[in-house]
Amino acid sequence: MSSTRDVLRFPESDRAQIDDYLPSKSSIAAAHSKSIPYTTLTFATSMDSQITMSPGIGSPLSGPASKAMTHYLRSKHDAILIGVNTAIADNPNLNCRIEGGQPRPVIIDPKGRLEFGEDSKIFGLVKDGRGKAPWIITAKQEDEIEFEGRELLRAAGGKLIYLSPDQEGRFSWQDILEALWKEGIESLMIEGGAGIINDMLAEGQGFIDRVIVTIAPVWLGKGGVTVLPERENPGKETFRLRGVKWIPLGEDVVCCGRVTEVQRESPVML
Amino acid sequence: MSSTRDVLRFPESDRAQIDDYLPSKSSIAAAHSKSIPYTTLTFATSMDSQITMSPGIGSPLSGPASKAMTHYLRSKHDAILIGVNTAIADNPNLNCRIEGGQPRPVIIDPKGRLEFGEDSKIFGLVKDGRGKAPWIITAKQEDEIEFEGRELLRAAGGKLIYLSPDQEGRFSWQDILEALWKEGIESLMIEGGAGIINDMLAEGQGFIDRVIVTIAPVWLGKGGVTVLPERENPGKETFRLRGVKWIPLGEDVVCCGRVTEVQRESPVML
Repeated sequence: MSSTRDVLRFPESDRAQIDDYLPSKSSIAAAHSKSIPYTTLTFATSMDSQITMSPGIGSPLSGPASKAMTHYLRSKHDAILIGVNTAIADNPNLNCRIEGGQPRPVIIDPKGRLEFGEDSKIFGLVKDGRGKAPWIITAKQEDEIEFEGRELLRAAGGKLIYLSPDQEGRFSWQDILEALWKEGIESLMIEGGAGIINDMLAEGQGFIDRVIVTIAPVWLGKGGVTVLPERENPGKETFRLRGVKWIPLGEDVVCCGRVTEVQRESPVML
Repeated sequence: MSSTRDVLRFPESDRAQIDDYLPSKSSIAAAHSKSIPYTTLTFATSMDSQITMSPGIGSPLSGPASKAMTHYLRSKHDAILIGVNTAIADNPNLNCRIEGGQPRPVIIDPKGRLEFGEDSKIFGLVKDGRGKAPWIITAKQEDEIEFEGRELLRAAGGKLIYLSPDQEGRFSWQDILEALWKEGIESLMIEGGAGIINDMLAEGQGFIDRVIVTIAPVWLGKGGVTVLPERENPGKETFRLRGVKWIPLGEDVVCCGRVTEVQRESPVML
């Protein structure tokens, strides 16, 4: 039973501005040669590079037009990925509120910290036909996970995907992306939180096809959750976008770009 | 002897976009009622809100178009202000390389740390007729300052302005701006460095008329000099711009806005 109550609108004129940066048949075909999805990294920050005022509090940083854009982006990807901290802290609605297919939510949860109950927001959306049940990428074996939650997940159409972590308990982006590709995901939108974003901008930058960042004209001030990746070489910037386009959207601006040093064998060019 | 060697160009089409945010007769008249200059805060950051890769190293963050804009802004203000740390670390060319008047460089130097020699870059510009000698705002008495430097400054056309610091050795923005107004400065552009910017965005925000920030599409990564103001109230953003306009300029974007909560008796509105 689909609800139109919360439907968002993202005007054609705005779509036309951003479509060049979204997955297409040809860009997915190029990514295909590497057996990993076409990947878009996207998030919203303040001027002082913070995604939220304090850990666990979702601050309404960007305006309604940017929010509609995020849902439009979701409609153009097979799956959206977040880390477990964000899933726990924000309990986000990982669905798409714009006409188009619903993306598959993917949650990176190496230690199986996520708990499901009848009242988890994400199951409510599934029941209403307004979202898909999540896939959880975890290192915890199935019999280690609490039975009821596992059954709820399965009944809703979600599943657990097992990967081997490294010695620090982390997954490699190569493994994550390969696993999703094998599950049929051809385009992936990585949304957050800060841990995931900082890691993608540094270690994971060779796996990104496009970056789409919204900036709101506000300084949150010290104490928030910051996008500030590690710098490998003290004298060298971590990450520079090329082919950049800035799109004013309401009070915010959207920065679209591609990656500087494409580390793939078959670079995807604009 | 004026040199045209380093002249920059900032096209009319770009000027038209930004002129609404620059000091004009009417906006200066409004500021006048408070006996302080019309004040523009301007700086350039990376996406992760850093103004330079590491302390004392001027990184070429923004592109040539943004650089030309900075010089255009300088041509539209009576004076440009920086802190002593920036003056020492960057030894910047505080002049204007676009047709128009030369702004007066103002350096905030409470403890009189700045030293002048025959070879100081700023005197070279004065000799060439390509810049004005600086005014130094200091708490150090004239006879405490090294004689040769004082004479060089005076000979070049600069001077010392004395203010009383607070118990922590700092000046108030009210005192600084009043002093400059008394010296005939009707429009002031505050350029940096991070200490000055962070202070203006927090404590000093009631004194800002306009903010013009350039953002380059690069993440410098941990270790640089960050614009991240103090947050007075943990649950409240520090500073939000209103009447915002985003102007793409080369690979960069320029954010122009006015201050949220105008704390003056006679607010200057767009």
